[in-house]
Amino acid sequence: MTRTVIESKTKTVIIGFDEPFCVIGERINPTGRKKLAAELEQGNFETVIKDALEQVACGATVLDVNSGAVFTNMMATDPRYADNNFVEPPLMKALIEIIQQTVDVPLCIDSSVPGALESGLMACEGRPLLNSVTGEEHRLELVLPLVKKYNVPVVAISNDDTGISEDPDVRFAVAKKIVERAADFGIPAHDIVVDPLVMPVGAMGSAGQQVFTLVRRLRDELGVNTTCGASNISFGLPHRHGINGAFLPMAIGAGMTSAIMNPVRQQEMEAIRAANFLMNHDPNGGEWIRFAKVLEAVEGGMTFAEASAAASQASAGRRGGRKGRG
Amino acid sequence: MTRTVIESKTKTVIIGFDEPFCVIGERINPTGRKKLAAELEQGNFETVIKDALEQVACGATVLDVNSGAVFTNMMATDPRYADNNFVEPPLMKALIEIIQQTVDVPLCIDSSVPGALESGLMACEGRPLLNSVTGEEHRLELVLPLVKKYNVPVVAISNDDTGISEDPDVRFAVAKKIVERAADFGIPAHDIVVDPLVMPVGAMGSAGQQVFTLVRRLRDELGVNTTCGASNISFGLPHRHGINGAFLPMAIGAGMTSAIMNPVRQQEMEAIRAANFLMNHDPNGGEWIRFAKVLEAVEGGMTFAEASAAASQASAGRRGGRKGRG
Repeated sequence: MTRTVIESKTKTVIIGFDEPFCVIGERINPTGRKKLAAELEQGNFETVIKDALEQVACGATVLDVNSGAVFTNMMATDPRYADNNFVEPPLMKALIEIIQQTVDVPLCIDSSVPGALESGLMACEGRPLLNSVTGEEHRLELVLPLVKKYNVPVVAISNDDTGISEDPDVRFAVAKKIVERAADFGIPAHDIVVDPLVMPVGAMGSAGQQVFTLVRRLRDELGVNTTCGASNISFGLPHRHGINGAFLPMAIGAGMTSAIMNPVRQQEMEAIRAANFLMNHDPNGGEWIRFAKVLEAVEGGMTFAEASAAASQASAGRRGGRKGRG
Repeated sequence: MTRTVIESKTKTVIIGFDEPFCVIGERINPTGRKKLAAELEQGNFETVIKDALEQVACGATVLDVNSGAVFTNMMATDPRYADNNFVEPPLMKALIEIIQQTVDVPLCIDSSVPGALESGLMACEGRPLLNSVTGEEHRLELVLPLVKKYNVPVVAISNDDTGISEDPDVRFAVAKKIVERAADFGIPAHDIVVDPLVMPVGAMGSAGQQVFTLVRRLRDELGVNTTCGASNISFGLPHRHGINGAFLPMAIGAGMTSAIMNPVRQQEMEAIRAANFLMNHDPNGGEWIRFAKVLEAVEGGMTFAEASAAASQASAGRRGGRKGRG
């Protein structure tokens, strides 16, 4: 039974075939978020703190931390800031420290810069997930030693030096190569979480079917957990949250065990919680029944984030109360 | 490739592995609808006409017609009305005639009374779906000859003389027996649409998994299409449409090809239309993009039924216009 164990200072999250779907919050990512990038440039972590709290309240059990910021003002005065190898390592360290002071959930260290990955690994308490290795030769050679040295699991994206193949058999072969190369380093398959790459269904009609077939094969033939950037499936389409809300249960039914996604969206989170129940990963529907109260609060006029935060605080209050009486 | 062909006077609907999911509207059913039963007792078909139009506008491509009414007033004055063998055959004929005057979609003749099934078969234009045969001996002997005589497809429910088994292997064996008995009558497997029986997930945590596994087996091993009473899955649960909205895409991903359900529900229909797209059964997302306009109208304040009716009328107007110019 494949179990990928990730940990914060005190909490353990298991990605696995017999576990509820693991929601990895994607919001802490300055790529394409100009306002966040500008804040980070000024050493302002308010949005990071808000995003960390909100995502955890909404149901993320792991937070992705991406340090891919472009510091345009600093770059203008100091050319070293044009190099992400200079910018990201200290930024990753700062992000992880502030997030660990804010929430106690495992983190997913996300960067294309090896120095930022190692900086994140040094700053992280517990056992983070590393994001990511690909089938590209230089990436394998740079990232797998880090995975081994720090004994952490890693996201393996199924593209290689030839790019992203539209042929799912090629993407499977790339994933298989990564698992084999990891084994050469002594890294077990249960510490590899494969991202089979999700194409937009609006551009490629077979995109959904490709993912479902790949996930089943990755699970049956390689015994690995899987993840994806779920919202890619609906890129460019109207009412895309409706597409995401059907894609996630279908992917879960096919065996997908985690996704990097925005948890501050009711439609997607409702679909995932219902799918957990239908996969028999929510004993007696306890999580569903708690979530139904959040949905009721939304019907009463709260935003999903507000309703989730209120439910999360109430639950923390009850836990505190019990502890107090214990 | 398994294709179950059903027809109205002029329209053909195919239930099949490579077709969009077939939505069979369940609303025309006096069981548990006292107001509808009382109207039918008075020969009033207003609700039937409204339900037929509304379900088709919302996306049902087949309408189930159930004649299981209890005529309590007539029963008090004439004891023959206590017998459904007396009540249902003429009622089924009347229902089918009025529905065929209202909409041009294939029908699903639904009764536990063999006389009502035959009355419906005689009244129906085209090639209806018969609902249903079970694995019960007397039912097999009564219904399969009708299926053969009228050359129609039939819904096969996987319970038998021992009742409904909680063991999915037993339900599979019952389905297999029905397919084999049908073959003895010269009825091909592609004219059998198996209902593997959906249990409430609130009562049985494995209910979802059972259905997904059964649907895959029925498809791979018997080559049959499948259907179900989809809303059973969420019986007794809060926010049950959220459960249904995840169950349907997961069932479709597992290979289910139709459901008997309420199409006048946005959450379920949105999930099905998104799932069709993700199964590559909606070329270029044309249906999804049209449906997104209905969702926009709902956001603008219309009910789902109103928005669907408006979109359906606009589309009929365009078709009329083209015909006029032709």
